[in-house]
Amino acid sequence: MGILVVGSLALDSVKTPSGYRDEILGGSATYFSVAASYFAPVSIVAVVGDDFPDTHVAFFHQKGIDTAGLQRRPGKTFRWKGEYAQDLNTAKTLETHLNVFADFNPSMRSEHRSLEYLFLGNIDPDLQRSVLEQMRRPKVVACDTMNYWINHKRDSLLKTLSMIDILVINDAETKQLAGESNLICAARRVLSWGPKTLVVKRGEYGALMFKAKSVFGAPAFPIEEVVDPTGAGDSFAGGFMGYLAACGATNEEAMRKAIVFGSVMASFNVSEFGPQRLGELTFTEIEARFREFRKLTYFEDI
Amino acid sequence: MGILVVGSLALDSVKTPSGYRDEILGGSATYFSVAASYFAPVSIVAVVGDDFPDTHVAFFHQKGIDTAGLQRRPGKTFRWKGEYAQDLNTAKTLETHLNVFADFNPSMRSEHRSLEYLFLGNIDPDLQRSVLEQMRRPKVVACDTMNYWINHKRDSLLKTLSMIDILVINDAETKQLAGESNLICAARRVLSWGPKTLVVKRGEYGALMFKAKSVFGAPAFPIEEVVDPTGAGDSFAGGFMGYLAACGATNEEAMRKAIVFGSVMASFNVSEFGPQRLGELTFTEIEARFREFRKLTYFEDI
Repeated sequence: MGILVVGSLALDSVKTPSGYRDEILGGSATYFSVAASYFAPVSIVAVVGDDFPDTHVAFFHQKGIDTAGLQRRPGKTFRWKGEYAQDLNTAKTLETHLNVFADFNPSMRSEHRSLEYLFLGNIDPDLQRSVLEQMRRPKVVACDTMNYWINHKRDSLLKTLSMIDILVINDAETKQLAGESNLICAARRVLSWGPKTLVVKRGEYGALMFKAKSVFGAPAFPIEEVVDPTGAGDSFAGGFMGYLAACGATNEEAMRKAIVFGSVMASFNVSEFGPQRLGELTFTEIEARFREFRKLTYFEDI
Repeated sequence: MGILVVGSLALDSVKTPSGYRDEILGGSATYFSVAASYFAPVSIVAVVGDDFPDTHVAFFHQKGIDTAGLQRRPGKTFRWKGEYAQDLNTAKTLETHLNVFADFNPSMRSEHRSLEYLFLGNIDPDLQRSVLEQMRRPKVVACDTMNYWINHKRDSLLKTLSMIDILVINDAETKQLAGESNLICAARRVLSWGPKTLVVKRGEYGALMFKAKSVFGAPAFPIEEVVDPTGAGDSFAGGFMGYLAACGATNEEAMRKAIVFGSVMASFNVSEFGPQRLGELTFTEIEARFREFRKLTYFEDI
């Protein structure tokens, strides 16, 4: 039931209405792996520079995360600097320095090739396929992407989509990818390109899961103090894949619960800068919030 | 279990990506009353000019709606002209002519004063209180408002809020009213001013219901073809109050179902121009969509 995540490790400088943090641990693989680690064993495939602090590696180990696939390269680690305005909905990117991440070319260790759950973080769709081709066919392959790849590598991205099971993206990306302003129509079109499941993240508005014959909708867990939204989407994906790996099923019931666990992990993540809050959870807290989530959405039949 | 709604009747000219309609029946009291009419008897208190077509009055009668409180005044009916861009999220108002609505001063007929469910549509908060003071204390009083009254009649609006049970507004209005960018904090503040319940409409993202000790969240029903969003919020309020009046209860369970019936009515309403689709429903269709809504949101406990 092991999960492999391929994505970025970064040093993030983040300003929000709650404060500023300089060069804290970030990146899609960070948030994903920490969130997923509460559910199943996780291995990271990523690249960092020689400036990546050992304390961060120790933090992954403390969460039981396998870093054997972590490549260290001469040079600097990927850096991102961003700012959120009062409404906290969208990050304004101030600086992006890809550094060693620019030449990231993930090669899989043999012990990783047989892992059953694969999450292809937001990297070049060519690399996503290269990873996938190195694996023995995993049981579940999920994938993220972003506007840059939709615009600049559309054909490659569509090839990747034809090979995966679950696409996890946000609503703007869904509409952009499909070239459709109605989200439901956009979702239908994306599903026609291969993925059996499309999970649409909508930030403070929750998530929708589309399959050929069903839709599941969940609001976001209401959070009074959002300190830093960075990594919410990746925490969501980590909780989602983590639960799928833990339960071993991929039926509708399991996937709906997975969406809720994803929402739960995202809701914890935003209440502190970086992956701090996410890193200090107990499974009892996670289960308690799952049950609160059920109270939030439950209503009786007529 | 009768419902009284005080609000606007209008002739709307609406442009959406699906087409244009000139001077069709509109106004908050229209959408509210037609939606509510499937659940309970509804009486309208509103004003129209001498140009208001008899066919519209006949339409209300056909839906069993009591129009004895409909005042006809010399002059023209309230007219609104608006346009929706491709994403259909926000209307751009092109023209507003209040006409006879500018001097609307609702005086209640004696048979209306004892109705148990009162919906105060989006009118001057002074008038909302004047209506409320003419009523024998109804069982449930719900109220809508808008940015104009929040900005220009804040003190009067707060007085109205201290006298009602349920406030039904959208998320931008909630934040503006509370002066808070976090919706959950904003909701807490609004509740501290009097209403026991705050229902926050979020358009395509669904609705949230806040009480002192609980929150309920529901996504919007996914609609592939949104033709005209005009009146969605009022249809929602009509379904919501309609169900409360029909079931006679105001406990958490009843109010959650009422939110879902509100969402159901809004989802039907947007699929045609004006109140056309809303007017031709059967209760079987409404119940079927309620059950589909339950399938949309249901997940098992862990």
